[in-house]
Amino acid sequence: MGTCSADLAALLGPNATAIAAADYICNKFSDASFAVDNTYLLFSAYLNFFMQLGFAMLCAGSVRSKNAISVMLTNVLDAAIAGLFYYLFGFAFAFGSPSNGGFIGRHNFGLESIPSSSFDYSNFLYHWAFAVSAAGIASGSMAERTQFVAYLIYSSFLTGFVYPVVSHWFWATDGWATAFRVDNGFLFGSGVIDFAGSGVVHMVGGVAGLWGALIEGPRIGRFDSSGRSVALRDHNATLVVLGTFILWFGWYGFNPGSFNKISGFYTSGNHYGQWSAVGRTAVTTTLAGCTSALTTLFGKWILTSRWDVTDFCSGLLGGFAAITAGCSVVEPWAAIICGFVAALVLISCNKLAEKVKYDDPLGAAQLHGGCGAWGVIFTALFASEKYVREVYPSRPVRYGLFMGGGGRLLAAHIIQILVIVGWVSATMGTLFYFLHKFGHLRVSADDEMADMDLTRQGRLAYVDHDEDESQKQGFK
Amino acid sequence: MGTCSADLAALLGPNATAIAAADYICNKFSDASFAVDNTYLLFSAYLNFFMQLGFAMLCAGSVRSKNAISVMLTNVLDAAIAGLFYYLFGFAFAFGSPSNGGFIGRHNFGLESIPSSSFDYSNFLYHWAFAVSAAGIASGSMAERTQFVAYLIYSSFLTGFVYPVVSHWFWATDGWATAFRVDNGFLFGSGVIDFAGSGVVHMVGGVAGLWGALIEGPRIGRFDSSGRSVALRDHNATLVVLGTFILWFGWYGFNPGSFNKISGFYTSGNHYGQWSAVGRTAVTTTLAGCTSALTTLFGKWILTSRWDVTDFCSGLLGGFAAITAGCSVVEPWAAIICGFVAALVLISCNKLAEKVKYDDPLGAAQLHGGCGAWGVIFTALFASEKYVREVYPSRPVRYGLFMGGGGRLLAAHIIQILVIVGWVSATMGTLFYFLHKFGHLRVSADDEMADMDLTRQGRLAYVDHDEDESQKQGFK
Amino acid sequence: MGTCSADLAALLGPNATAIAAADYICNKFSDASFAVDNTYLLFSAYLNFFMQLGFAMLCAGSVRSKNAISVMLTNVLDAAIAGLFYYLFGFAFAFGSPSNGGFIGRHNFGLESIPSSSFDYSNFLYHWAFAVSAAGIASGSMAERTQFVAYLIYSSFLTGFVYPVVSHWFWATDGWATAFRVDNGFLFGSGVIDFAGSGVVHMVGGVAGLWGALIEGPRIGRFDSSGRSVALRDHNATLVVLGTFILWFGWYGFNPGSFNKISGFYTSGNHYGQWSAVGRTAVTTTLAGCTSALTTLFGKWILTSRWDVTDFCSGLLGGFAAITAGCSVVEPWAAIICGFVAALVLISCNKLAEKVKYDDPLGAAQLHGGCGAWGVIFTALFASEKYVREVYPSRPVRYGLFMGGGGRLLAAHIIQILVIVGWVSATMGTLFYFLHKFGHLRVSADDEMADMDLTRQGRLAYVDHDEDESQKQGFK
Repeated sequence: MGTCSADLAALLGPNATAIAAADYICNKFSDASFAVDNTYLLFSAYLNFFMQLGFAMLCAGSVRSKNAISVMLTNVLDAAIAGLFYYLFGFAFAFGSPSNGGFIGRHNFGLESIPSSSFDYSNFLYHWAFAVSAAGIASGSMAERTQFVAYLIYSSFLTGFVYPVVSHWFWATDGWATAFRVDNGFLFGSGVIDFAGSGVVHMVGGVAGLWGALIEGPRIGRFDSSGRSVALRDHNATLVVLGTFILWFGWYGFNPGSFNKISGFYTSGNHYGQWSAVGRTAVTTTLAGCTSALTTLFGKWILTSRWDVTDFCSGLLGGFAAITAGCSVVEPWAAIICGFVAALVLISCNKLAEKVKYDDPLGAAQLHGGCGAWGVIFTALFASEKYVREVYPSRPVRYGLFMGGGGRLLAAHIIQILVIVGWVSATMGTLFYFLHKFGHLRVSADDEMADMDLTRQGRLAYVDHDEDESQKQGFK
Repeated sequence: MGTCSADLAALLGPNATAIAAADYICNKFSDASFAVDNTYLLFSAYLNFFMQLGFAMLCAGSVRSKNAISVMLTNVLDAAIAGLFYYLFGFAFAFGSPSNGGFIGRHNFGLESIPSSSFDYSNFLYHWAFAVSAAGIASGSMAERTQFVAYLIYSSFLTGFVYPVVSHWFWATDGWATAFRVDNGFLFGSGVIDFAGSGVVHMVGGVAGLWGALIEGPRIGRFDSSGRSVALRDHNATLVVLGTFILWFGWYGFNPGSFNKISGFYTSGNHYGQWSAVGRTAVTTTLAGCTSALTTLFGKWILTSRWDVTDFCSGLLGGFAAITAGCSVVEPWAAIICGFVAALVLISCNKLAEKVKYDDPLGAAQLHGGCGAWGVIFTALFASEKYVREVYPSRPVRYGLFMGGGGRLLAAHIIQILVIVGWVSATMGTLFYFLHKFGHLRVSADDEMADMDLTRQGRLAYVDHDEDESQKQGFK
Repeated sequence: MGTCSADLAALLGPNATAIAAADYICNKFSDASFAVDNTYLLFSAYLNFFMQLGFAMLCAGSVRSKNAISVMLTNVLDAAIAGLFYYLFGFAFAFGSPSNGGFIGRHNFGLESIPSSSFDYSNFLYHWAFAVSAAGIASGSMAERTQFVAYLIYSSFLTGFVYPVVSHWFWATDGWATAFRVDNGFLFGSGVIDFAGSGVVHMVGGVAGLWGALIEGPRIGRFDSSGRSVALRDHNATLVVLGTFILWFGWYGFNPGSFNKISGFYTSGNHYGQWSAVGRTAVTTTLAGCTSALTTLFGKWILTSRWDVTDFCSGLLGGFAAITAGCSVVEPWAAIICGFVAALVLISCNKLAEKVKYDDPLGAAQLHGGCGAWGVIFTALFASEKYVREVYPSRPVRYGLFMGGGGRLLAAHIIQILVIVGWVSATMGTLFYFLHKFGHLRVSADDEMADMDLTRQGRLAYVDHDEDESQKQGFK
């Protein structure tokens, strides 16, 4: 007899029938809760997965036309490879509690014992989509010059091991650094609040991509002989807008979806509950993105006197990457601050990248790594006491420095940044180093200069003439 | 103790424990309702927002290739500008009851006091997406020749003030013309039934666009020296189809989503409830769109002997714009009539526009303004008594003229059309007039003749050659 | 007084008030169930419908650029024609029980008597999207050479009659071959488990397309004078990826959505219920698709030494088509086997098609027909006893041959394949034969050699030069 039944039995009267009545009623209640919570989580997972199409279109539109097919192939592969590897062991590493000391999970390989009282299939599906995102981010940094085999190897390693381990630390109930732990000895008695993964997903993808792009070096022609930066223009702004809006749409699965459930009162008998927090999270996400997009658009206009829709798009995504950590625990007005600063971080990181001759075709390391790191800090500054109590009820309440919550949360979040950079560098950096050393990372200069889509994939993304026609005066 | 608890306590027995039991049980009930209603509303809001991508793709595909970037920039800007302005004051103007005499709301600026017993964050998000739609419609009419700064100004004004005020009149519970009012002294004792906004959204956007396009005049080359119409061909039918289907998909958020809630019996203990009305709304929407699409396709085939997929697409959208007002209160067979007439309205408006040399690159004024106005009339003719009673329970029942409901609803709806045309003309028309007068509305002829994407945005939507290559024998 | 009320009244005490209390409480319960189940079904229907955009983009990207508009027109038409015909009689043929001996339904024409205790509007919407899919599949096989009028005729016939009848047999509660029947005299005392339609939808579409493409013959130039196969290259890989991912996204409406409801415990008071089965179905779908995509990619690489993103895409869709029949009743590991074999089936069917000079521009007959048939067999081999009991509770339990369930299910499924091939051949094959005989099936050779988009639709999908410009030194 669960809590609900016991409570209700006491109210209905102290006899055997009352207990049966209470059981009966409570079963109906939990039926409704399971149904609505799983509906909520599944559709959030679908949206979350749909982001991968956003990445694919964004990448295809951002690279030179000749590389559109090869970059899309990497994006679609992510989803499929992660599907198998996350099923076989990624989910187990991430959430297979009890883990060994909070480092790595070790149960539920191949979804064994799922559904359990903690996880249903919907949780697996939801987190699979997160793993895909992390890999998708990294592939952007390394576009247009990476061998296919390198891609297969690092994508498997990232989605099957590196990312799951990080998500275990910060999201599993017994991860060593999570704010969901009930014992509060760890990490300044605070733990980390990274609600939907500015650190866990975006920084992991961004730092992985950073090492890959650094080790293989810039694309041929990206910097001229005198070292001056030469823009390799993206080929299709329509695809960039398409990809960006799909990502925006999907982010409503990514951020508000991270609650996993939508039922449950915060103030009993009132109108205020988890659904309000979910809605607020969608609002903070929207406001941060919009502010960052407008700031980036105007900022770049000041710098270059041009209004460029792709600036808007990358600003938008930078704002989303930043708000992802704190989306559930900050006020809407704070989200506007988050987005404003995210735009400045993004512009600065891009300037810096150009200065140090770092070539990232999608700007993924800057956007997801840089703005993601800002998001982790931002949360430690602006998390509101009330919201932290509601969203992390089991946790000692450490909230934002600027909201009067002291510096412990900030200290924990700085540790998070260092640990993520360290772990991803140690694993992915080492992998890329060895791939490079043995000649499996970068394509040959000949292949890169030629149409990569032709040499690797044997075809072009666009065929404008049909070989069964004479094509003397085609319409093209 | 709410009604639910009081009712149940009386049934369980007249003692203190029974009251506690009833409270306990009723809390669980409302938990389930809030959870499912917010899930329903949030995902409807996401779909609704996704329509903005539909507009962007439709616009990009409908203008000449050189203007694709600039038109997409206006579309993405809408969403972001509305995000901030609707948060700061638009939502307050629209739903900040009690208002001053039903004209404009004046509470909840910056989402203060949200969530309340009337509104949660999900309501804000849902209505933000509507504001974006209104602005997106107007931008279509003015594509290919409007200055960027003019766009920034009118988009802010429209989403932050003009549109919110209209939505207050017809949708807020204390708007002066709404069918949700309980006192029935207003507007022929009827009030207006504009369920999802054929008038409130589509006519507002269409009339705004009409004034903008009228004042700045047709694009250069749209009519030749002898005044004959010259088609400026749209550049990409694939994008038109893509945009149209995304709009179709999103319309299931726009129309059925306007119920805001999905729980609640109409016939207690039976299978019939709000969910049935929601489903019926999705069905009427589908049937009106399909009928209008087929009618337009065949109609244009009769006129021009061509089967054109873009005729199908604009017919579809015209049918949707028309059914939007009455979608929840008409029978499915009536929706077929609605769609059939919408196609005729659309074709006629387009003919008329050509005759009077009105140039609207997207045909937005004709489609959203013309078909929207038809939708307002249609509702006053075909609204069914039964459905009006269910969907507007607090209202004196005035239903469709052809359904035996008399002419009061029709009179109210004619007033709605006049009022919307008047208000939008007075506000947006004046704004466009002054922008024009001070030279901030239209780009220079040189800029318009040149590739606008190059002069304004400094780049083209499509780059087909890569500057790091010799390009002697390219594939294209 | 329903079962719920009766049960609860007995528990609350044997008096009049208890009955009223039980009624009251149970009404609230069913309110919650209806609300969440309809939310679930409606959003699944929206996703399901969205697949039609996937088909349109996939087709547009797979044909030669000159035919992109005409093929998209057929795709959008499907949705509209099915909207009207499925409303008028398709739904009645499919689910208008009681039917005449299980062959064809005969009630609910024009949605009369809907909502009923069995069906609400959401069910209609959901099944309309299925009808559209069946027609969309067939249109792929016949792309690039079929007359528009032929398309209008066969699409109406397929969505209004041929497909609804098949869905009645296997899905309506009184269909002659369904596993939902309670009497178990039919079909080896087993009935067919085709949960989401590998047979009912995919094979129907695939076999219809096969006959159409066979009767009109290959496209000009598809096989050279010596009979050698010549690839007519698809024109836009980006659109193929876009279409495929939208289909993937939509498949989460197609497969898990086929439960129609998400509430209901399997193990009362536990965490295990219909929501778990729904989630598991999403997982099996994902795993089958991913495995098939990777297998096809590597398989084709072994055969051709090329990594091709379109191989990945067709492999993915083949895996989805195969798992569709058994998605709800097999273990996740079995889905991996399903996907692996689906890839082999797909590659073999494509080889065979080339050998017998069968030309199918989308490979739709191979993919949907071939992999769909494999999916029907697969289910009869791997359906698990436990899951069959849960998902088909009213049915005599016949489960997979390899899971110890004996051969009766396999026998029933072989009958299903034969019956579908026979019925579709007899109806659609005959239709195509007469269309061909009277010269209404295939376009003229001149039209086919010319730009079909120009001759039929009077325009091209892409216009790269604007006629209002001199175009001396265009950017292209």
